[in-house]
Amino acid sequence: MQKVRIGLVGYGNIGKGVEKAVAAATDMELRGVFSRRDPKTLKLINESVPVFALEKAEKMTAEIDVMILCGSSSGDLQAQGPHFAALFSIVDSYDTHAKIPDYLAAVDAAATKTTAIISAGWDPGLFSMMRVLSDAALPDGEAYTFWGRGVSQGHSNAIKLVEGVKDAIQYSVPIEGAVEKVRSGSRPKLGTRDKHLRECYVVAKPGADKSAIEKSIVTMPDYFADYDTTVIFIGEDEFAANHSRMPHGGNVIYSGSTGESKHVIEFSLKLDSNPEFTGSVMAAYARAAHRMAGEGMYGAKTVLDVPLSYISAKPRSTLIKEML
Amino acid sequence: MQKVRIGLVGYGNIGKGVEKAVAAATDMELRGVFSRRDPKTLKLINESVPVFALEKAEKMTAEIDVMILCGSSSGDLQAQGPHFAALFSIVDSYDTHAKIPDYLAAVDAAATKTTAIISAGWDPGLFSMMRVLSDAALPDGEAYTFWGRGVSQGHSNAIKLVEGVKDAIQYSVPIEGAVEKVRSGSRPKLGTRDKHLRECYVVAKPGADKSAIEKSIVTMPDYFADYDTTVIFIGEDEFAANHSRMPHGGNVIYSGSTGESKHVIEFSLKLDSNPEFTGSVMAAYARAAHRMAGEGMYGAKTVLDVPLSYISAKPRSTLIKEML
Repeated sequence: MQKVRIGLVGYGNIGKGVEKAVAAATDMELRGVFSRRDPKTLKLINESVPVFALEKAEKMTAEIDVMILCGSSSGDLQAQGPHFAALFSIVDSYDTHAKIPDYLAAVDAAATKTTAIISAGWDPGLFSMMRVLSDAALPDGEAYTFWGRGVSQGHSNAIKLVEGVKDAIQYSVPIEGAVEKVRSGSRPKLGTRDKHLRECYVVAKPGADKSAIEKSIVTMPDYFADYDTTVIFIGEDEFAANHSRMPHGGNVIYSGSTGESKHVIEFSLKLDSNPEFTGSVMAAYARAAHRMAGEGMYGAKTVLDVPLSYISAKPRSTLIKEML
Repeated sequence: MQKVRIGLVGYGNIGKGVEKAVAAATDMELRGVFSRRDPKTLKLINESVPVFALEKAEKMTAEIDVMILCGSSSGDLQAQGPHFAALFSIVDSYDTHAKIPDYLAAVDAAATKTTAIISAGWDPGLFSMMRVLSDAALPDGEAYTFWGRGVSQGHSNAIKLVEGVKDAIQYSVPIEGAVEKVRSGSRPKLGTRDKHLRECYVVAKPGADKSAIEKSIVTMPDYFADYDTTVIFIGEDEFAANHSRMPHGGNVIYSGSTGESKHVIEFSLKLDSNPEFTGSVMAAYARAAHRMAGEGMYGAKTVLDVPLSYISAKPRSTLIKEML
């Protein structure tokens, strides 16, 4: 059987995660990485995979089945999604929740002969699937999503822009009491501050005013002002030793009822590496995109539109026999 | 919009659960219950729903969109599945795992103009989806399924057949240490006895030999011999007071890796009422069966073949906007 030929656009943390996932899959092969950077400067895990300048991609439609877009939602995907969906079947992990409907429409308009699966990570992605599945099974109920304990790249970057900060990392931390309350089957009203804490580890520049840094962080609108935020100053050595990984995870807990009976559905992830797991999910959906394109199911799709048997490397008959 | 017209075959615990779920859905209506019993003897929750003799069903193909089969896998579905799938789109919760491929084939052969979604409960059903989803995302990993704490009807019935037993209920109980071991990210080898305990509450007939009853239970092949089984004798009053409900639940825990990074995916259910939750899941898949039939997607399907957007009463655009 011919392997699904994968191309990869953007080679940051998620790109590396996708590279690993495709290498681990028996039915896919990575045919090339496309980057805005000078191809010679990219160090792939597998050095035999060729690196191309981004603009080479449009001449390679006969050589790539599915292009996996690993750029950022804010900077890259708005333009890259529609651009590449016109040329290839694509998968991305577009995660600006509020803009998904517009992005979906733009990609859908471009994907007239391709299948474009957008927002295929874990949130949006697997967590979305759990919210929909639970709500469909138990219409009388409420979904609660908790993120963490894990690193938020966006919040970490926001701290790095504060004057006097040399390096920083931010962990989103679910408030255990809130999680337990939901898990018990009650349906509490929870505000933003009730669900998550924000923990910031900061390396200050020599001579910087730490109390000014702390104040800038905890009062920062959108990012921190609505949360109970802790700022902890640490040295560079400790930062390098204890904060160089990107763990993440979270829970979708759905509390529902059928008449007198209560039911709690919970889905949780504990991830050592957020980008490697996200890359793995994207690789699985690349398999589905290729298959759906082969069946003429063109247009923009989400994880809600894809049957689970399409994301597996195993034949349907095996899934039914061994996993149903 | 016209509501999906539901028929219900068999009116035991699951049938009642389906009745409740359909009543709670805004887009479905229960058009009739079909039973082998004398229609006059059935007491529905909603007394305005008509009850018909089973053989009336075949003359009502124009009045029912989806027939939900609530009979038992061992006694009823082998014959009823193919029979009704030839006449109606159907949903069932066929749960004899080892025989699913044969059953699927028999139903598929009959469902030439209908959509038949089989094994749509929670295991098989939602748990199967989690096993497939996890395995597709992380091919290097292993799924562990734990059932309970909850009532097993099959095991309860097996005890009731023991001489001297007046009434009995059996709870399957996951062994907490095993659950924790898997949840920690290790991949232990677990035998049958390592994963679950069996707890039996028995009301003995007056004068019965309790030690003989206990021995018959704990040594019973297939049902109890391979487990650590506890037998607790109680009085009728206590039985009625504390053991008349049917709670259940369980966990699918998937422990996987991407290279050095470990990831744990967990899905858990805590259900006050097993039949009401199962009935709710079946009702959601009835919605999908109707829609798939309308799109010409005929034949036998499983939960692995149905996109999640098909089981929701909400429009796809709403799901994408609010839940993705």
